[in-house]
Amino acid sequence: MKNYKMIIQYDGTRYAGWQRQDSNSNTIQGKLEVLLSKMEEGKVTINGSGRTDAGVHANGQVINVQLATKKSTAMIKEYMNSYLPEDIYVVKVVEVDPRFHARLSAKGKKYVYCIVNHEDPDLFQRHYTHHIIEPLDCIKMAKAMTYLEGTHDFASFTSKKNKKKSTIRTIKSIELKQCGKELQFIFSGDGFLYHMIRIIMGTLIEIGLGQRSPEEVQSILEGKERAKAGHLAPAKGLRLESVYYNKE
Amino acid sequence: MKNYKMIIQYDGTRYAGWQRQDSNSNTIQGKLEVLLSKMEEGKVTINGSGRTDAGVHANGQVINVQLATKKSTAMIKEYMNSYLPEDIYVVKVVEVDPRFHARLSAKGKKYVYCIVNHEDPDLFQRHYTHHIIEPLDCIKMAKAMTYLEGTHDFASFTSKKNKKKSTIRTIKSIELKQCGKELQFIFSGDGFLYHMIRIIMGTLIEIGLGQRSPEEVQSILEGKERAKAGHLAPAKGLRLESVYYNKE
Repeated sequence: MKNYKMIIQYDGTRYAGWQRQDSNSNTIQGKLEVLLSKMEEGKVTINGSGRTDAGVHANGQVINVQLATKKSTAMIKEYMNSYLPEDIYVVKVVEVDPRFHARLSAKGKKYVYCIVNHEDPDLFQRHYTHHIIEPLDCIKMAKAMTYLEGTHDFASFTSKKNKKKSTIRTIKSIELKQCGKELQFIFSGDGFLYHMIRIIMGTLIEIGLGQRSPEEVQSILEGKERAKAGHLAPAKGLRLESVYYNKE
Repeated sequence: MKNYKMIIQYDGTRYAGWQRQDSNSNTIQGKLEVLLSKMEEGKVTINGSGRTDAGVHANGQVINVQLATKKSTAMIKEYMNSYLPEDIYVVKVVEVDPRFHARLSAKGKKYVYCIVNHEDPDLFQRHYTHHIIEPLDCIKMAKAMTYLEGTHDFASFTSKKNKKKSTIRTIKSIELKQCGKELQFIFSGDGFLYHMIRIIMGTLIEIGLGQRSPEEVQSILEGKERAKAGHLAPAKGLRLESVYYNKE
């Protein structure tokens, strides 16, 4: 058996999220495992770098998987892309050290959240952007972002809490880029809690609309209660851009 | 009755093209007419600037329509967008001179054809781009484009010929822009024949792949026979970008 690392793109629109579910075969992990199990003629389990919610996209999800196949990496890529549905694509297949694990070896992740802030939506980007008609105050949002950067207990910014697990995370940076009528929020960090970016985005949107002040972010962090933070922003605006590992 | 001009966007993926068909209600014109007939409580017929094929998109299709409604233009836009499917969008509604006709008053059109020329497709643009893996020679394609610009008999570049109608058209310009791995071919002209841009694109692709020389375009034009030109490039790479009228 050899250990393979793969970079996977997907349009999450049609899927019930990343993670395989017993009751629902319509997940990205499920599609990949079924296909690789056919190729291997035996049950294959893959490790993703992390889950993405239903409707969230990925430009660079990373997995690793143990395979016995004699196919070259180019042939594995070609085989997979010829059988996968058109909304899942394998960008890269490389053989890696047996100890490499897509989740456990990950050092950080980059996510992008896209908002179209304009009277009209972007029809051709409708599945990949969240449309907000009312003008957002980018200066206020940028100020709020500075309170979120760094190492904090993000307990207020997650939906499910496992009391045994730490909710402390480090956001290395949040960048805001404006491209025409599109606002891109770029999150880099060591890892993100369940729903964390979408709750941060819901909170930033409320700040951008003037419903909250940027300074409130500090008391939300201190409160450590989900109820203190803003709404859960829609999944479709979010994509997992890339995952970082050592020696890259 | 007042005459209204509207700018319409659509993702053509799911539709059997622009034009209303008796046997197929799944056309963009059909969707718009059914909706406006409901609003008007009477049969409404719209004039489009021209047809687009099944699978072709529009960023700025233009229509005109006579309406008795007392709604303001903003209210008409809002009404339409709240009932239209998510892949058709009304960008603008304005009241215009009674003599304005979307097709007969049109002075020119701009179309864009997008190719992703890379080993990997662009997953998120898969419905809006034609993917070609083999490297295209852009210098040869650009040379061929110069033979197509200007006023010519484009009889070789259309699928259906009506012998009574002229096949002479003027292509004002064909521009080629490279944006990363995407090639955009921007066509401006007074009007285009049925399938004309897609057959031009099929021919340019064959030239880009080295299967034909750029100079062959001259003999194709002179031949005035569909069989002399290249294949019909896929619809999904094409979009009607805008329509020009006087005083704009």
